[in-house]
Amino acid sequence: MNSIKVGLLGIGTVGGGTFQVLRRNQEDIRGRAGRGIEITMVADLDVERARSIVGDACTVVSDARQVIANPDIDIVVELIGGYGVARSLVLEAIAAGKHVVTANKALLAVHGSEIFAAAREKGVMVAFEAAVAGGIPIIKALREGLTANRIEWIAGIINGTTNFILSEMRGKGLDFATVLKEAQRLGYAEADPTFDIEGVDAAHKATIMSAIAFGIPVQFDRAHVEGITQLQAADIKYAEQLGYRIKLLGIARRRQDVGGIELRVHPTLIPANRLIANVEGAMNAVLVQADAVGTTLYYGKGAGAEPTASAVIADLVDITRLATADPDHRVPHLAFQPEAMNNTPILPMDQVQTAFYLRLRVADQAGVLSRITTILAEHQISIDAVLQRESAEGESQTDLIILTHDTQEGRMTRALQQMQALETVLAPIVALRKEELA
Amino acid sequence: MNSIKVGLLGIGTVGGGTFQVLRRNQEDIRGRAGRGIEITMVADLDVERARSIVGDACTVVSDARQVIANPDIDIVVELIGGYGVARSLVLEAIAAGKHVVTANKALLAVHGSEIFAAAREKGVMVAFEAAVAGGIPIIKALREGLTANRIEWIAGIINGTTNFILSEMRGKGLDFATVLKEAQRLGYAEADPTFDIEGVDAAHKATIMSAIAFGIPVQFDRAHVEGITQLQAADIKYAEQLGYRIKLLGIARRRQDVGGIELRVHPTLIPANRLIANVEGAMNAVLVQADAVGTTLYYGKGAGAEPTASAVIADLVDITRLATADPDHRVPHLAFQPEAMNNTPILPMDQVQTAFYLRLRVADQAGVLSRITTILAEHQISIDAVLQRESAEGESQTDLIILTHDTQEGRMTRALQQMQALETVLAPIVALRKEELA
Repeated sequence: MNSIKVGLLGIGTVGGGTFQVLRRNQEDIRGRAGRGIEITMVADLDVERARSIVGDACTVVSDARQVIANPDIDIVVELIGGYGVARSLVLEAIAAGKHVVTANKALLAVHGSEIFAAAREKGVMVAFEAAVAGGIPIIKALREGLTANRIEWIAGIINGTTNFILSEMRGKGLDFATVLKEAQRLGYAEADPTFDIEGVDAAHKATIMSAIAFGIPVQFDRAHVEGITQLQAADIKYAEQLGYRIKLLGIARRRQDVGGIELRVHPTLIPANRLIANVEGAMNAVLVQADAVGTTLYYGKGAGAEPTASAVIADLVDITRLATADPDHRVPHLAFQPEAMNNTPILPMDQVQTAFYLRLRVADQAGVLSRITTILAEHQISIDAVLQRESAEGESQTDLIILTHDTQEGRMTRALQQMQALETVLAPIVALRKEELA
Repeated sequence: MNSIKVGLLGIGTVGGGTFQVLRRNQEDIRGRAGRGIEITMVADLDVERARSIVGDACTVVSDARQVIANPDIDIVVELIGGYGVARSLVLEAIAAGKHVVTANKALLAVHGSEIFAAAREKGVMVAFEAAVAGGIPIIKALREGLTANRIEWIAGIINGTTNFILSEMRGKGLDFATVLKEAQRLGYAEADPTFDIEGVDAAHKATIMSAIAFGIPVQFDRAHVEGITQLQAADIKYAEQLGYRIKLLGIARRRQDVGGIELRVHPTLIPANRLIANVEGAMNAVLVQADAVGTTLYYGKGAGAEPTASAVIADLVDITRLATADPDHRVPHLAFQPEAMNNTPILPMDQVQTAFYLRLRVADQAGVLSRITTILAEHQISIDAVLQRESAEGESQTDLIILTHDTQEGRMTRALQQMQALETVLAPIVALRKEELA
């Protein structure tokens, strides 16, 4: 049977990895797919470097549109990244009748609806396993493996850079800025790490998973995005004393009670004995709660040349297979058939339900705890645990740590304002969300 | 579009779960699959009980062959279990042109080659996600998600009963027999638990995974099968002191150096800080090492009505989709196209390479350790760590614990014979395999 002909747009880290893995494992891949999969054309602005990677194995051009226009190319792999030119090229490839594979989470989280609609219209597939959690086949698990289930929630460590930083902060007791520099030196963080450390990258991925899990359109603009830049070493330590770890989680949760969906990325306290709490370094893991199967977890490398290539190639093989199936029988891009999608709203943050960890720097005097607990009670926030450090000799202030039960975020916001206004609260209150993931 | 019509053979725990989940989530499942999936006929010897589960929703018969003969049935789900009648019925269903879904690991591990060949011949699919690790979509991950990879090894906690027992033995310091009774009382172990506690069930699943991972035929008769019935509380405790946990692992490993494959189930010491070492209770987890993606792990419930139903229904939806694809483009039963399978031999146990944990009850006298380490050295077995308990006042014997580096099992067997023959070795030596899973 003829080989499937693939054109790469961009041959950086992931493109290079894809080329290498396809070449190294070509025999196994052909043995599984039933036909060869061959990269026959590569477009990259840096033609020299591209040529140094692929040698004489395929045509190298600087203009991506030549790949799209080539009638021999069956599948176009977009590895350029970003929202701009990548969007145009993906839409043009679809218009030209090519199947598309992309690792571009930003593009799909923002322009996914437009892209998937165009693909349906044209009868081609857009596959994107590599866009979420790198080499972990989580898109396949959610869309196909758990297809029998009503998914209740997803909570994922889906950004390796921030997980590496948090692991180092905890392990070595260092502060954020110091560890970030180390991460940059080791190549775990980019020179401009904004998208990672501010939670944007995780939010892109959580947005894509929320759509697949709940049958809603991708709505990155409705996601709550909060990074780890404000996180202090002290809170990681207190959390540990209370039996918790702090992880940057991307969370998507169905809220039956209010008919909405929570979509949020933020540092989160989770019980230290949960499997996902022990995911360290740059590794990723996604925890899924679903009605029939219960809890499942998927763990692996979320980035890097070959782990991401593993996902890109899995998509190539899937397309090879499903391309011959009746288009109505292919796996829908967002798990649900277009007519079965719904418009359950993503909830504003003040309607989100979570528990909280609070750290208050308070004057060490009688009545402080009472005033604070009274405010919490007035907002119907119930307390799970209190940790008050004995103040050192001669100290006139101390840290008061409070863990609450689940409450509505809006209530906590109002309680925080009142507590912050107390004279005996001497510094900005640290408030972190806490999830039991049970 | 017409609903897919499904006939169940056997409606016990898993059949009942499948019926319930299909009914409860029918709207979501139709929304994903693009068409309804309906159980229209059930065969069970206990017609009364079957009727009490399905009500008037479908036809109930006592003769499975009526389901197979029904021209309206598209897919037959075999949930009878065992090697006997299940084999005949699956082959008859295939001969009748039905696609088959089965959760029957024993059947596939033993008669898989015959069944898959018959299915290919007839152009139908046999799907079996539920046969390994219950609701965890591990078959899909191995066959499709990791299709780009050369798989190096798989190590799985794939039997919930034994993992529950081991967790309880460690947590409560109890011995095997006591915990087994508790497990039976709680429903985690069957009245006749032989297949679970002797490692047979895990070996069935490991056999299936080895075939998918390495492109070899299923060869249950070549698997090394060792259960947990001989495991003593003392060894769990010593292992813990040395930083290890003991788990019943199913292991399939490619041995490039000798051109063979290891396929074995046995209690195994693994480092306590590995994620898989922290899989507790009846949960399952499969760790996969592959060349491109690196390490991935899949965790979830390995048994139970609805987790298993989740896998059965995922198979039903997959068949619904791929049934319209060109048969040459479907996912091959064992991941590789028939002509791409190979005959790499499964290695005899004495060629297997592992590290060891040894516990020797020895006379507390000078020269004992020297004699033992000399024997190990003579067999080129190098020592990683030694733990010698100080003997209690008045005691004349003590436990000597030795951890070795990787060695060939054959060497260890011979060294054990010599050590056992020493006069100063006062009881049968406990030898357990140890894997770093790095």
